[in-house]
Amino acid sequence: MTHPFLSLSPDPAHALRYILPLDERLCVGPPGKRFLFGGAGLASSVAAMEAASGRPAIWATAHYLSYARPGGDAQIDVRLCIEGKSITQARSTLMLGDEEILSATAALGARDSWDDQWPAPLDVPHWKDCAENPHWGAETGISGAFRFRVAHGQFADAPADKVRAADGRLALWMRPVDDEIAIDRVLLAVIADFVTPGLRNATGRRAGGNSLDNTIRYGRIVPTDWVLCDIQIELIHAGMFHGTMRIFADDGTLMAIASQSMILRVRD
Amino acid sequence: MTHPFLSLSPDPAHALRYILPLDERLCVGPPGKRFLFGGAGLASSVAAMEAASGRPAIWATAHYLSYARPGGDAQIDVRLCIEGKSITQARSTLMLGDEEILSATAALGARDSWDDQWPAPLDVPHWKDCAENPHWGAETGISGAFRFRVAHGQFADAPADKVRAADGRLALWMRPVDDEIAIDRVLLAVIADFVTPGLRNATGRRAGGNSLDNTIRYGRIVPTDWVLCDIQIELIHAGMFHGTMRIFADDGTLMAIASQSMILRVRD
Repeated sequence: MTHPFLSLSPDPAHALRYILPLDERLCVGPPGKRFLFGGAGLASSVAAMEAASGRPAIWATAHYLSYARPGGDAQIDVRLCIEGKSITQARSTLMLGDEEILSATAALGARDSWDDQWPAPLDVPHWKDCAENPHWGAETGISGAFRFRVAHGQFADAPADKVRAADGRLALWMRPVDDEIAIDRVLLAVIADFVTPGLRNATGRRAGGNSLDNTIRYGRIVPTDWVLCDIQIELIHAGMFHGTMRIFADDGTLMAIASQSMILRVRD
Repeated sequence: MTHPFLSLSPDPAHALRYILPLDERLCVGPPGKRFLFGGAGLASSVAAMEAASGRPAIWATAHYLSYARPGGDAQIDVRLCIEGKSITQARSTLMLGDEEILSATAALGARDSWDDQWPAPLDVPHWKDCAENPHWGAETGISGAFRFRVAHGQFADAPADKVRAADGRLALWMRPVDDEIAIDRVLLAVIADFVTPGLRNATGRRAGGNSLDNTIRYGRIVPTDWVLCDIQIELIHAGMFHGTMRIFADDGTLMAIASQSMILRVRD
């Protein structure tokens, strides 16, 4: 079950327990103050719950309680609360030593139906026609594992014109740097946490946030070289902000819908 | 803390425990097969976690494990996992007897910041200019507690023209029937579960669903007579569908963003 992006492996001594080495490349933050990227925590939880249930995730959410520093091994314990004919309801807890870092919840499974989707990708240039952007944040952390091309809005630590974007929308093509890594549900959970650049674009300020949660809902997964992340900052209120993201394959298939709430941090 | 819509009350014998009488008017489904409406379950959990923490909800999600029939008293147990300087992370479990019906997770609190929002309401007629619609479903259940006026799309058990709506979008003005009930965070959690009419509009079919979860993220709450629910059906895949909803006050304030995943049920 080892995923090419996460070195997650089952604990041979405990059923439904998985071990996640906390590599620097799964982390964010300045050197010396790095911590596990929320999306990597959600992705690991999704991978563990899919492995434990033997079913594909329908939706999943992670609730962040604390920060995990890189270096050690985290442990993910899965509980299969309800195992129905076609759907499993599961929960998992990611622990580092005695500390609970995050808890996740998911429904997993599949039934028969037709496929359909309603939202279409923004009418933006194809990734082949967009310039490659410098990495967001430190290149040794998680953002160094991805390539970015901006299709709409501004993607920078401090937007050049420092004006609020009226539509609050940033469209970003993303893909892993490593060509061996395919874009699957696990990787989409990592990608879905790249909402902070959307806040900078929306506010025109040097701003960021700490995720309170990450929530993702999955559609059909198709092979794609890049994904188009359509990031919408929804609102700011009481020191918090909420963002949503639709993730499209390059053929226009809506593969995931994500949302999260964050604590607002303004640095300008 | 008793809410005018929910008869929730603290259990005098147990700290952090609340009792919810399962009234018929909080339920959905045909007579004899009614069960607690998911949104009412989320709303009760939000009310209990707000009371237990003394803080306003930032976001909350409920994960549905089983169905609760009307008649008895459910019990909601709150756990305050982390109580920070300005944010509490909480979880709650709604039990009926020995059975776990739903578990909910929330972050609650407030800090200083400016207010802003990006999405605007759809350009649709004001509620004063929309005709009142017949109730959705049985009038004695939860839908009988609300008034509905359609501003965009079709709102019917089986859409008259039976064609797929290209935009998958239904805009619905809603308000409580009872003029004594104000629209607050708790009531918005109930309203946010009215996604099923959006599925009928999007597919043009006699279709519905069972919620796997309900997730809501809050903005500024302002006094309003009606709210505009902008319901977007996102996609159908593997027997499931995902929907999102933005809820605006009649002055255009974005008060909440909601999303959920459902098991697809087609009856035509």
